[in-house]
Amino acid sequence: MARALLMLAPGFEEIEAIVVLDVLRRAKIEVVTASLDQHLVRGAHDLQVIADALLSEVEETLFDAVVLPGGEPGTTHLAASQAVKNCLQNHHKAQKWVAAICAAPRILESLGILQGKKATSFPGTRPKLVSCEYVEVPVVVDGNVITSRGVGTALPFALELVRVLQSDTVAQNLSERMVCTA
Amino acid sequence: MARALLMLAPGFEEIEAIVVLDVLRRAKIEVVTASLDQHLVRGAHDLQVIADALLSEVEETLFDAVVLPGGEPGTTHLAASQAVKNCLQNHHKAQKWVAAICAAPRILESLGILQGKKATSFPGTRPKLVSCEYVEVPVVVDGNVITSRGVGTALPFALELVRVLQSDTVAQNLSERMVCTA
Repeated sequence: MARALLMLAPGFEEIEAIVVLDVLRRAKIEVVTASLDQHLVRGAHDLQVIADALLSEVEETLFDAVVLPGGEPGTTHLAASQAVKNCLQNHHKAQKWVAAICAAPRILESLGILQGKKATSFPGTRPKLVSCEYVEVPVVVDGNVITSRGVGTALPFALELVRVLQSDTVAQNLSERMVCTA
Repeated sequence: MARALLMLAPGFEEIEAIVVLDVLRRAKIEVVTASLDQHLVRGAHDLQVIADALLSEVEETLFDAVVLPGGEPGTTHLAASQAVKNCLQNHHKAQKWVAAICAAPRILESLGILQGKKATSFPGTRPKLVSCEYVEVPVVVDGNVITSRGVGTALPFALELVRVLQSDTVAQNLSERMVCTA
């Protein structure tokens, strides 16, 4: 079973995080939500959730994918965490999937992970992404890196993760089951 | 400030609930999440959230809208609750907005609220909706009733709630801000 690590920091964008959790679990991908400090995490719009783990408990584990939701101040908290940075670099070095949506691609930029790659982000984050070839499409896959734009692209972002971690068929069936084509 | 009540039962569909919470709060609509029994509620895909209130604490209050997410066994739990049924009937009688997505429109059907109205639902729930004029579109508004189809239509469902509780302009600006047109 493929395994994904979903980072949750205080002020995370709820839709961007929960869509990934829900869609990947529907696809039988194990999703571990990891909080930076305490298990109870409050999102950008005051949703309180209980994370599965503390990042300190799983930071030595290599997952098949690491996923960063956006939102503020969630992205700023993730960007300030050395544990998050170490985790991203370890996964990138091991050529595991590294995925970020909305404002979070700027964390990948700061680590040099977007260098020379095609990538996208929340429109307002674009000025920070100077090392990549910026493209304005809902989801971009380049090498082991997946980036996306925001709340409105969270479903195709999650379905792309299903596609690379499972298969086109699983992603397509799931898309139909979720009435994404209604 | 408009106020919406979002029902959370064990096994609620996470995306359908959280998209409504997030998008309405972005639009400065107060959203109160209400659980049937205890504050900690586990969704259909094992997300644990803390509800703002117990339904017993708010069941006498008239909100501007009551919203039912789908998912199983969440919908079955909501359908079995006399407090949920009372709350829906009180809001319907007062011509407040009554909204349901995915499998949840069957609860409105069982209360006679869909009688003679245009409505939609998750495709698999369609056989249960016998009293309405069934239509296959992402979101249907008829009178004070809003229905929608599933995870893939949760964003337009939430934006329709913003439109009726706030305005077209607020919904349109929010849609652009959330990169729904990417």
